[in-house]
Amino acid sequence: MTGVKSIFVGVPFDDGTTFRTGPRFGPRAVREASRMLRPYNPVVEVKPFEKLGMIDYGDVDTVPGYIEDTNRKIEETLTPIFSAGIIPAVCGGDHSITLPVLRAAAKKYGALSLIHFDAHSDCWDDYFGKKYNHGTTFKRALEEKLIDPTRSIHVGLRGPLYDSTDLSGLSKMGFSVITMKKFTELGVTGTLRQILEVAKGTSYVSLDIDGIDPAFAPATGTPEVGGFTSREIQDLVRGLDGKNLIGFDVVEVSPPYDVAEVTALLASNLTYELCSVIAKHKQP
Amino acid sequence: MTGVKSIFVGVPFDDGTTFRTGPRFGPRAVREASRMLRPYNPVVEVKPFEKLGMIDYGDVDTVPGYIEDTNRKIEETLTPIFSAGIIPAVCGGDHSITLPVLRAAAKKYGALSLIHFDAHSDCWDDYFGKKYNHGTTFKRALEEKLIDPTRSIHVGLRGPLYDSTDLSGLSKMGFSVITMKKFTELGVTGTLRQILEVAKGTSYVSLDIDGIDPAFAPATGTPEVGGFTSREIQDLVRGLDGKNLIGFDVVEVSPPYDVAEVTALLASNLTYELCSVIAKHKQP
Amino acid sequence: MTGVKSIFVGVPFDDGTTFRTGPRFGPRAVREASRMLRPYNPVVEVKPFEKLGMIDYGDVDTVPGYIEDTNRKIEETLTPIFSAGIIPAVCGGDHSITLPVLRAAAKKYGALSLIHFDAHSDCWDDYFGKKYNHGTTFKRALEEKLIDPTRSIHVGLRGPLYDSTDLSGLSKMGFSVITMKKFTELGVTGTLRQILEVAKGTSYVSLDIDGIDPAFAPATGTPEVGGFTSREIQDLVRGLDGKNLIGFDVVEVSPPYDVAEVTALLASNLTYELCSVIAKHKQP
Amino acid sequence: MTGVKSIFVGVPFDDGTTFRTGPRFGPRAVREASRMLRPYNPVVEVKPFEKLGMIDYGDVDTVPGYIEDTNRKIEETLTPIFSAGIIPAVCGGDHSITLPVLRAAAKKYGALSLIHFDAHSDCWDDYFGKKYNHGTTFKRALEEKLIDPTRSIHVGLRGPLYDSTDLSGLSKMGFSVITMKKFTELGVTGTLRQILEVAKGTSYVSLDIDGIDPAFAPATGTPEVGGFTSREIQDLVRGLDGKNLIGFDVVEVSPPYDVAEVTALLASNLTYELCSVIAKHKQP
Amino acid sequence: MTGVKSIFVGVPFDDGTTFRTGPRFGPRAVREASRMLRPYNPVVEVKPFEKLGMIDYGDVDTVPGYIEDTNRKIEETLTPIFSAGIIPAVCGGDHSITLPVLRAAAKKYGALSLIHFDAHSDCWDDYFGKKYNHGTTFKRALEEKLIDPTRSIHVGLRGPLYDSTDLSGLSKMGFSVITMKKFTELGVTGTLRQILEVAKGTSYVSLDIDGIDPAFAPATGTPEVGGFTSREIQDLVRGLDGKNLIGFDVVEVSPPYDVAEVTALLASNLTYELCSVIAKHKQP
Amino acid sequence: MTGVKSIFVGVPFDDGTTFRTGPRFGPRAVREASRMLRPYNPVVEVKPFEKLGMIDYGDVDTVPGYIEDTNRKIEETLTPIFSAGIIPAVCGGDHSITLPVLRAAAKKYGALSLIHFDAHSDCWDDYFGKKYNHGTTFKRALEEKLIDPTRSIHVGLRGPLYDSTDLSGLSKMGFSVITMKKFTELGVTGTLRQILEVAKGTSYVSLDIDGIDPAFAPATGTPEVGGFTSREIQDLVRGLDGKNLIGFDVVEVSPPYDVAEVTALLASNLTYELCSVIAKHKQP
Repeated sequence: MTGVKSIFVGVPFDDGTTFRTGPRFGPRAVREASRMLRPYNPVVEVKPFEKLGMIDYGDVDTVPGYIEDTNRKIEETLTPIFSAGIIPAVCGGDHSITLPVLRAAAKKYGALSLIHFDAHSDCWDDYFGKKYNHGTTFKRALEEKLIDPTRSIHVGLRGPLYDSTDLSGLSKMGFSVITMKKFTELGVTGTLRQILEVAKGTSYVSLDIDGIDPAFAPATGTPEVGGFTSREIQDLVRGLDGKNLIGFDVVEVSPPYDVAEVTALLASNLTYELCSVIAKHKQP
Repeated sequence: MTGVKSIFVGVPFDDGTTFRTGPRFGPRAVREASRMLRPYNPVVEVKPFEKLGMIDYGDVDTVPGYIEDTNRKIEETLTPIFSAGIIPAVCGGDHSITLPVLRAAAKKYGALSLIHFDAHSDCWDDYFGKKYNHGTTFKRALEEKLIDPTRSIHVGLRGPLYDSTDLSGLSKMGFSVITMKKFTELGVTGTLRQILEVAKGTSYVSLDIDGIDPAFAPATGTPEVGGFTSREIQDLVRGLDGKNLIGFDVVEVSPPYDVAEVTALLASNLTYELCSVIAKHKQP
Repeated sequence: MTGVKSIFVGVPFDDGTTFRTGPRFGPRAVREASRMLRPYNPVVEVKPFEKLGMIDYGDVDTVPGYIEDTNRKIEETLTPIFSAGIIPAVCGGDHSITLPVLRAAAKKYGALSLIHFDAHSDCWDDYFGKKYNHGTTFKRALEEKLIDPTRSIHVGLRGPLYDSTDLSGLSKMGFSVITMKKFTELGVTGTLRQILEVAKGTSYVSLDIDGIDPAFAPATGTPEVGGFTSREIQDLVRGLDGKNLIGFDVVEVSPPYDVAEVTALLASNLTYELCSVIAKHKQP
Repeated sequence: MTGVKSIFVGVPFDDGTTFRTGPRFGPRAVREASRMLRPYNPVVEVKPFEKLGMIDYGDVDTVPGYIEDTNRKIEETLTPIFSAGIIPAVCGGDHSITLPVLRAAAKKYGALSLIHFDAHSDCWDDYFGKKYNHGTTFKRALEEKLIDPTRSIHVGLRGPLYDSTDLSGLSKMGFSVITMKKFTELGVTGTLRQILEVAKGTSYVSLDIDGIDPAFAPATGTPEVGGFTSREIQDLVRGLDGKNLIGFDVVEVSPPYDVAEVTALLASNLTYELCSVIAKHKQP
Repeated sequence: MTGVKSIFVGVPFDDGTTFRTGPRFGPRAVREASRMLRPYNPVVEVKPFEKLGMIDYGDVDTVPGYIEDTNRKIEETLTPIFSAGIIPAVCGGDHSITLPVLRAAAKKYGALSLIHFDAHSDCWDDYFGKKYNHGTTFKRALEEKLIDPTRSIHVGLRGPLYDSTDLSGLSKMGFSVITMKKFTELGVTGTLRQILEVAKGTSYVSLDIDGIDPAFAPATGTPEVGGFTSREIQDLVRGLDGKNLIGFDVVEVSPPYDVAEVTALLASNLTYELCSVIAKHKQP
Repeated sequence: MTGVKSIFVGVPFDDGTTFRTGPRFGPRAVREASRMLRPYNPVVEVKPFEKLGMIDYGDVDTVPGYIEDTNRKIEETLTPIFSAGIIPAVCGGDHSITLPVLRAAAKKYGALSLIHFDAHSDCWDDYFGKKYNHGTTFKRALEEKLIDPTRSIHVGLRGPLYDSTDLSGLSKMGFSVITMKKFTELGVTGTLRQILEVAKGTSYVSLDIDGIDPAFAPATGTPEVGGFTSREIQDLVRGLDGKNLIGFDVVEVSPPYDVAEVTALLASNLTYELCSVIAKHKQP
């Protein structure tokens, strides 16, 4: 894959979801929606796909009903990608798929800075009695030292919780947090300042589409009202320009719940924006 | 019902609607959407359902095609609730159902302060030749002295009217009004200041889901573009913290027009937020 | 048509679309949605339809599969309208229909100032190998001297482009441009100031519904995330109060992709707002 | 209305429904779907609209939330129509609207033969505690001597009942009945033979769209699986050729539940077929 | 549970699906659709729920992403039910859930006669590299001697296969098969005759909703055109009257793909019909 | 393309439609739906794709808004295919695309026998004032001697017409016709007998999805109730086994109007069945 600096890879798996399923069709929908993408990003001022020599790597083989087997296959697929210094643009799939991606990444890069856009922290110790699903991803990543909490931040958290310790627990783990309430105070600029301060060094972006408000992204499994607008999330993502991003994912797009493909279009666009900020400073 | 300070009660009636029907399935949809609610509200910092000893009281019996009979049944059901000092979280149903709820409330509390979020004032003298339907609710409430206009406010009004007297008429009746145009100038903070100034004493909140923009709440009968975002309405509702709310309703959720349950989720969340601000200052 | 100062006219044609079709049903949907309109606009403070003596002129005959024949029929229908000084409120149809409308307008008024709200500039020289479709409208209008670029402005442009020259080319043609990025900086007020400075003299407004964000207007053919909210576009349109508008169109509403008629309602409302600002200063 | 032998009249009322609402938009949807109708019926071999001098009479004014007031308005509208010997093609609306239509008809014609296609008999004595709604229509019609049970037949009945007496009660009232189970045995031909034997003299056809299987007619309020196919109901309706039909209705089309307008198209087509069999033997 | 002869039990699990997910919401949708059921079945002539003392047993706890853990929980839940001689009406969930149900049943009854309505045989040895998912259910059941192939029959098989041995393999395993091609020749009566001949003794019915044509049951994960109509499947199910059925399931209803609840209504009705034939000959 | 005896080719064009558009996405939808196809057809007893060495040839370039230009491109693409004796499985697109396919075919084979399944004859002389669109295809084909009417047959015609001469005109042109009314009398077997008698020699099959009833195929532009069931059309298509088919098309699938992909699945399946009957007798 000479000249390939980045790949698009789909992970059509959603058995880690605990409410509405459907993200297994995320890659299919995002690919279809990508028909509307053109080469040049006039805001970031780059031709991301050209500069990154980007290709579609296809989908990871997954195993319906077997999350841990699927995790292994994802890790096996991503390991040589990261190892070669190639930046994967991972398209979920539910949020459980991020754990094996981080496992593959950490083999190459060590503990990563995590920039996590999401309505939920996905940091429960277990959920539905299990250690592995879309609610425990970053607790596992922390335990396995795949991410460094002091350089990691959760952005966009909101919605009812089990207890007041849910949020304070994140701080105890060492994470930074910007809730939606905080975001409303800080605005995009203030929020970006905090993100950039925290997320030092080699970073990975994990973007759960439910971080965005259901009006803009109805097609997701555990929607939570009161989220980002499309312009806010675009600005947040574009503000990562300059960070050393070694991979990212956009997850939890659930096409059976979409209307007029608006969620798929947004996910496709955010993938494009993330590729753009990565491409901007790459040597050609 | 020892220890019960608040109940959830559905009113599956929509024959007061004059355009798109459907709110009779509002209670069913809001209950389903409530599966995503968890005990602790991290913004209001309270466990509303636990603190209020909240229970689901079921649905009021309604009579399809007979609005006045239905009104009687609603009033009969709510009267002992209010009488016992229990706070009902009423789930519509169309906006005609608020009149009998207010009748029941006023028996206990006298004329109430009304905090009304809606695209429409619902203050016509008659509509389709009738005194009772979802367009006349607050005119009747005024006449019957269920609400005190000098302590009542309509927030979010917008959209085409019959004449310039439609708005000035509200002032003549003694109501305060914050139109969406005014809201855009005042912002959430300025709007809340006005609401809190007007709404003195024992208050009732009536929240018509069409106060929110159709992008966030498509599932309603008489949608009007240019409304609140989900974050704005959340902040407005949370800002009622400290008011003496003796009941509230969320009405006009029309599930047949919903997409991916986004409107039901919003209605469920706003019910939760209203319960939270009520619970906050309750003695346990 | 004594006393008629303005007409509503539909153009049920969408063979100029290059991605999702459907705008041929735009006029039908906007008419249905107009049931929710009432006579008085409380923000602009006018009864637009009454003051303009507005009537529904019906639909232009179109020829499926034959864009140039259709263009001729549109021009033939609109020519006597403009000639009589009547202001057409044109309801598309896709954006290709604006070219023949401008041809008819220019016969009466000469080169016009264009105020163009859209995600895309529609200024390509050709598209799919052809000179005429919804991507070339304003390049043709420029060549045919139907619009004066120095008095014309594109507002709301965003999304991936073919090259950096796409935007700079607009400047070379003489157009003013406010991208969404710029709009985020300027806000509604600053944007309106620039529009009003550029758009001198006799003006025509062309409003592509995809200028608005897909959350508010999902039903369109080439949706682009990150657009205007409904309140922003309402404020922009209302800010044109005082301009000498001799006609306008609202295009690219594609009902097969709508949910709960929200896009049709928005298009209907924006038509109403545009009629209102036109009516405001008209002699009765 | 010289030369007019038949009219199409809408009754946009659905407050008689006891489960899913929506038929108030039936007339709007059937009119839209009628765009696909052409003048000549090649099976019945007649141009129905031309021969009947058919016009669209518009809609009856209805009163949301007031079934008995609405009934009066329907009767008032239809009385002069029947009185003039004009055949109304009534488009519901829910099945409660048939009662006032029959009241108007009986003033002119006396007790009618009723040919009733439906999954349900609509012959309950009361329903939801009321004498008037879509479940009691034909019990009331019987009591008021608007229909002659010995010349009346219910066709297509199926689905769970309250008790075994529900069906036997129909016989006691004097009605003939062909359940779907019986229809499966008799086929279209045998069923038609029985219908034609029973339905002597001046007849009225009432066709509830839920008589057809939900696969063919999903858009209805109380769907019941196991119904007629579209070809069976077409053949049944065409088989009424020769009967003296003085009016008919097609009711319970609920557009909010439709997909790709298939139910509206079917209702439109069945209206056309009924007009055709009426027109066939009319003197021009 | 004195007097309870049958229970309704939901299994909200769909991680055994290999294409479109969604059946985890099957129980919720079937319960909602059951609102339209009434006590008396006029075709089977019984009040099934009353006679069976039927109750809603709630849902089995399931474990998202862990099919084998879920299987254990299903088996644990069902074992005491079967052991007590209670007949479970199992509501899926995908078809993988039938295996643990059969394990529980076989502990009580030994190898069962299976009457299997489905487009697919679900008899693959493995699928997606795994022994357990919705494509291998009856191969596993055979190996584990939960069913007796000589008394078991697959009805409704159709659609493309991997090889000609797919069908012949079923015969080799000892199963009887009626493909849709065969059904078209035999009709309902001939098919029932064969089913009744094969299915001797204690029998279990497994009804995959995709046995029915997608026109009647669109909401399923692996739809296959050319299936049963609703009337055919009703007649087939009613024809089991007299068999010794000790339990049954209706599976693969996937609500996210439903329209106007037609699939849920059909599944609810077939559950009702199966309860009816079971109730018919039960001692009260 | 050694070993390739047949290709799948998409024609994403729908500007020949006169009512609901959308078939330009037909090829995309049919390809997605083809994921459910497996190699072996157990009814026709062949592995069609393997035996035909079938490949996906991609899509014909089309020109939005220019039907005659598009026709030229289709003809240019198909000419070398037919010339090489390769059998194209053409996936529309609307029915206008069949004309250039026939032009390409006739260059190789001369006037063809046409087997045409459709609700409409598509034999008007002009439509919307034009000679070329989806309503005139076979009149043009006749004039251009691409088809031999004495060996051609229209099957499934139904629905309202302009005049009685519409049907008799077909006979005058020399075509055979089996209307749905006739089909109901003849059944599948009798209909196939007539088709096989008429369609001698080199034949082409054109299958408009609207020949099937909207219950089974809602996603089409000019739906007509009372059509084939899925099993009937499968049996009709399979009955062509033995004919010398040199190409075929499946057209008018309009994905924006689909539900749960049922129409796309049916179109995909019918394509598979047609490939199967072609493959059956091919030398390997």
